[in-house]
Amino acid sequence: MAEIIAQSQPSDWRALDPQQTLYLDLPAGRVVIELAPQFAPQAVANVKLLAQEHYYDGLWIERVQDNYVVQWGDPDGRKPLGSARHTLPAEFVVPSRDLPINALPDPDTYAPLVGFSEGFATGRDVTTARTWLLHCYGMVGLGRDNDVDSGNGAELYAVIGQAPRQLDRNITLIGRVVQGMELLSSLPRGTGALGFYEKPEQRTPIRQLRLAADLPPMQRTALDVMRTDTPAFNELVESRRNRREEWYKVPAGRIDICNIPIPVRPGKQAR
Amino acid sequence: MAEIIAQSQPSDWRALDPQQTLYLDLPAGRVVIELAPQFAPQAVANVKLLAQEHYYDGLWIERVQDNYVVQWGDPDGRKPLGSARHTLPAEFVVPSRDLPINALPDPDTYAPLVGFSEGFATGRDVTTARTWLLHCYGMVGLGRDNDVDSGNGAELYAVIGQAPRQLDRNITLIGRVVQGMELLSSLPRGTGALGFYEKPEQRTPIRQLRLAADLPPMQRTALDVMRTDTPAFNELVESRRNRREEWYKVPAGRIDICNIPIPVRPGKQAR
Repeated sequence: MAEIIAQSQPSDWRALDPQQTLYLDLPAGRVVIELAPQFAPQAVANVKLLAQEHYYDGLWIERVQDNYVVQWGDPDGRKPLGSARHTLPAEFVVPSRDLPINALPDPDTYAPLVGFSEGFATGRDVTTARTWLLHCYGMVGLGRDNDVDSGNGAELYAVIGQAPRQLDRNITLIGRVVQGMELLSSLPRGTGALGFYEKPEQRTPIRQLRLAADLPPMQRTALDVMRTDTPAFNELVESRRNRREEWYKVPAGRIDICNIPIPVRPGKQAR
Repeated sequence: MAEIIAQSQPSDWRALDPQQTLYLDLPAGRVVIELAPQFAPQAVANVKLLAQEHYYDGLWIERVQDNYVVQWGDPDGRKPLGSARHTLPAEFVVPSRDLPINALPDPDTYAPLVGFSEGFATGRDVTTARTWLLHCYGMVGLGRDNDVDSGNGAELYAVIGQAPRQLDRNITLIGRVVQGMELLSSLPRGTGALGFYEKPEQRTPIRQLRLAADLPPMQRTALDVMRTDTPAFNELVESRRNRREEWYKVPAGRIDICNIPIPVRPGKQAR
């Protein structure tokens, strides 16, 4: 993989768009989230509005359930949402048209077809012409209650374990952690039901959650992400399907889409 | 799932065998590991010997690589192995005969067939009549160098992220964490290559790693594990394949074997 990255061209990469990037700033550092407005336009817009009105600042990570999710927001559900909407239509699937897919050749347990679309791992059903984001490690979504329109961004979660693919098409995903995942995954697990912390002092405070574009350039984290629609990326996928390092004796010849890393590197501003 | 457990019979459970159970005692608490001698008899015997001669006591967790593995052992590789063997034949696969399998109906990306055998998630190839343990979350194996016989138990690892199934049939697995997984998964990630800690003081010390049978009964952790070859377990699997809780709107109708939890409860001694 290091070889493929070393031989890649500038055109194999894209810079994160500050208009579609969130920074979750914790005492231990920054978690960088790339938004996916192509897949959940209304949810992304609502979360951006909440961030722009500083809704999340001073709230907490309140839930860490082992091998499942980290969740943050307002544990008491009392903070006003400001200009943001309180309910949002479900954005669990989107029409496949206009969404090119770089399909994987390997079978998937859950979806008829999987592949990368616009930089994200997706599932697709050709018969219904629907596409959806997959709950891979690091994916970020909108917590909701039983009503499908009850997720509004006030509670967000990130996947920290084995991909909980049973959530696919049941809840709105809005993006993916591209840097700082370890700041979430290494948090102490909550001992209450569903991994909620039992005592307020166990929560991790959120310093701020902001849209990158709303911070001065000096405070941004410039990152490039490898494109998922290039020969270089296909080469990377192939190198992971069949590991050729000497250590491996039986290359799998297959790969689960959630096991494919999307490389990230410092962007221009930071280099 | 709570209902199925509540309605289960005593015969749906088995007590952990103290002769096949390891306790990894850390400052934060105990990690309980069930050994799988049916799948790796020589590796299990070597690790038990190392434990019985207190090889691991005073060593460290030296590596935590996000979304991959936690590894413990002797970072300097200098501690004598005592009576234990320095090399062991690869035990990556075993003959399928004598190993009943409770097969899953769902397709798996990596293995021709998957199912539970003797309480563990396994893959099987009917044409070669071979069966192997799967690298699901919480599985424990023997670190090795490039030579397949170089794993001897001096370095052990546990899976803490998306199942790295590319490791299947490439390295010897010896068991599974049945309790205390969160003590490993929430450790700070190492910032060196492959997630090794860069400074010795970042390591987590191992108080002791012992075979349950070698501790007085009062110091043991009595646990029952749900059997994986009963109608109750099949019911549990079905309830996870098709989630019927009101929250779920689109039951998956499928499941990845690594997403199936095997319930654990306090055993007789502890109740």
